[in-house]
Amino acid sequence: MWAFLDGEFVQEKERLVQLENRGLTFADGLFEVIRTLEGRILFFEDHYSRMKKSAEFFNIEMRFPSEEARRIAVELVKRNGIEDGELYIELTRGTDPHRDHRYPPKETRSTFFMLALPLRKIDSTSWRDGVKLLTYPDLRHGLCEHKTINLLPNVLAKNFAYARGGYEALMFRESNGKKYATEGGSSNYFFVKDGVFYTPEVDNILSGITRGKVISLVEDLGYEVVEKRIALEEFFNAEEVFLASTVSRVMPVRAIDDVSFEVCGKHTAKVMRAYEDLFFSAR
Amino acid sequence: MWAFLDGEFVQEKERLVQLENRGLTFADGLFEVIRTLEGRILFFEDHYSRMKKSAEFFNIEMRFPSEEARRIAVELVKRNGIEDGELYIELTRGTDPHRDHRYPPKETRSTFFMLALPLRKIDSTSWRDGVKLLTYPDLRHGLCEHKTINLLPNVLAKNFAYARGGYEALMFRESNGKKYATEGGSSNYFFVKDGVFYTPEVDNILSGITRGKVISLVEDLGYEVVEKRIALEEFFNAEEVFLASTVSRVMPVRAIDDVSFEVCGKHTAKVMRAYEDLFFSAR
Repeated sequence: MWAFLDGEFVQEKERLVQLENRGLTFADGLFEVIRTLEGRILFFEDHYSRMKKSAEFFNIEMRFPSEEARRIAVELVKRNGIEDGELYIELTRGTDPHRDHRYPPKETRSTFFMLALPLRKIDSTSWRDGVKLLTYPDLRHGLCEHKTINLLPNVLAKNFAYARGGYEALMFRESNGKKYATEGGSSNYFFVKDGVFYTPEVDNILSGITRGKVISLVEDLGYEVVEKRIALEEFFNAEEVFLASTVSRVMPVRAIDDVSFEVCGKHTAKVMRAYEDLFFSAR
Repeated sequence: MWAFLDGEFVQEKERLVQLENRGLTFADGLFEVIRTLEGRILFFEDHYSRMKKSAEFFNIEMRFPSEEARRIAVELVKRNGIEDGELYIELTRGTDPHRDHRYPPKETRSTFFMLALPLRKIDSTSWRDGVKLLTYPDLRHGLCEHKTINLLPNVLAKNFAYARGGYEALMFRESNGKKYATEGGSSNYFFVKDGVFYTPEVDNILSGITRGKVISLVEDLGYEVVEKRIALEEFFNAEEVFLASTVSRVMPVRAIDDVSFEVCGKHTAKVMRAYEDLFFSAR
C-alpha cells in the first residue's frame, strides 16, 4: 500500500514521521476523511476547503493547492487499487526538534500526508435495522468546529458505545443543569418530530460535510430543518432519529440508551433515499 | 542525538513512527517532561508513576516497568551528553493500520519513546524580574487531570501569550458568568494574599509534580495553602503571584495582562529558595 507524504508517494517502510513531529507531540494538526466510491473521490472540494479554512485559522501552511491535492489523491487511490474506500488526509505543523509549544520558525515546513484505505467494515444490516447510540458526556475541547486531531475524548466516547453494543456515542454537554446534545465521535445527529427535522446548531460542534448535504436535501424535500440547541430529552422524545457522516452516510438510529424509536420511519427513509441518490451520482 | 523507541536506542534516521500511529491520528497518548540536572534525572518516579496511573485509566499498555525505564533514561541522557536538559517521554496506543476510533486488537503494542534534549533557553532574568502572563480562555477538554498529548488548545494559549510579550497564558473557564483561573499551557499558578497561599484546586487541571512539591514546601515553611476554585479577580487582587513547572521551577510573575505585582515578594522569595534547595539536592 502506498501513501503520499510531503511530496512523494511512499511505501510501507517510508510511511514514517519523526518523533518530534508536532502532530505526534502536540496534536497540532487537522484531518479529513473522504469517501471513495468505485475509485471516484466524493465531495473532495468540500473536505479540502474545510481543511484549508481551519489551516488558515491555526496558521498552518497548506502546501498543496486543491487541484494538485486532488490529482495526488486520485493517483493514490488508483495505486492502492481502492474502489470503495476512505481517503485520509492529515496536515500538521511539521517537525520541530525542540518540542516546544512555541510555533517553530517560519521556514519549518508543515507535514502533509494522505492514506487511501479500504472501506471499514460496517454490517450492512445497520442501514436496515438501525443502530444503537449510548449517551456520553462531551469531554472535548473548545475547538470542535475545526477537524483537529485532538481526538482522545472522541476515542473514549466511541469505545464506551462499542463496549455496550452501540454504534456511536451521542455526546452531551451541560448548561445550567440541563443536558444538551452535541454530536457523535464522528457523526452528526438529526431527529424528526411532527414532520419537522431538528439537528444541533453549530456551536462548538463540527459542521459535517454530510450534515450540510443532508440539510439541503431535507429542505429540497419540502421539510423545515431547525438548527438549535437541543436538549437530550428532545432526542428521547423524537419520532425518528438518524445520524449522518461521511462513512455512515444516513443511518437510522433504533435506540438511544434504553429508549427505542421507529426504525427508518417514513421521513428518514426519504432522506436516506435522497442521500443515496446524491452519493451514487457524486464525483 | 539518540532517542529510545520501543526497546531500542535509535539515531536520527530511525527516530520515526508510522503515519498510522494513534498518537499522530487520534492524539491517543500521554507524555511527561522531566528535568535533568548535571546529568541526574529529577523526580523520575513522580513523573513515571503519574504516567502509569493515566495509562491505567486509558487502558494503554506500559511496556517498561519503572526501574527499567529509569535505567533507559539514564543511559539516554548519558549517550546524548545532556547535563542540564529535559527528558521527554511519550506513550501512545500504538500503530493501527485501520485508522479507526475502535481500540486496536489486544496484541497491538503501545508505542513508547524518550527524547533527551538540551534545556530550552529561558532568559535567566525571568527569575529575577518576573514574567508577564496573558489571560486566555481555557479551551481544553475534560481530561486535563491526565497529561495527554491533546495539546492544541495549550499551544494556542501559549502562543497568544508569546505574541504579546508574555511568558505564559493564565487560562480561565467561565461558570455562571464568572471567570475562574485554571492553569497555564504548561504551568500551575499560585498567589499570596495576607500571608496565605492560594492555588486552583485540581478540578480538570493537572496536578503538576512541581505544584505538589511547592505545596509541601510552603506548608513546611509554616504557611497555609488553600486549594479552591479561584476567581480571576482574586489573582488580579493578589499581593504576589508565581508559577510552578518542571522547566520554569518557581518563577515570579510581575504582571497579568495590565495588572502588576510586587516581583519576588518576601513570601515568593522564600518558596523560590526552598524549591531551589530541593531541586539542587534532588535525584
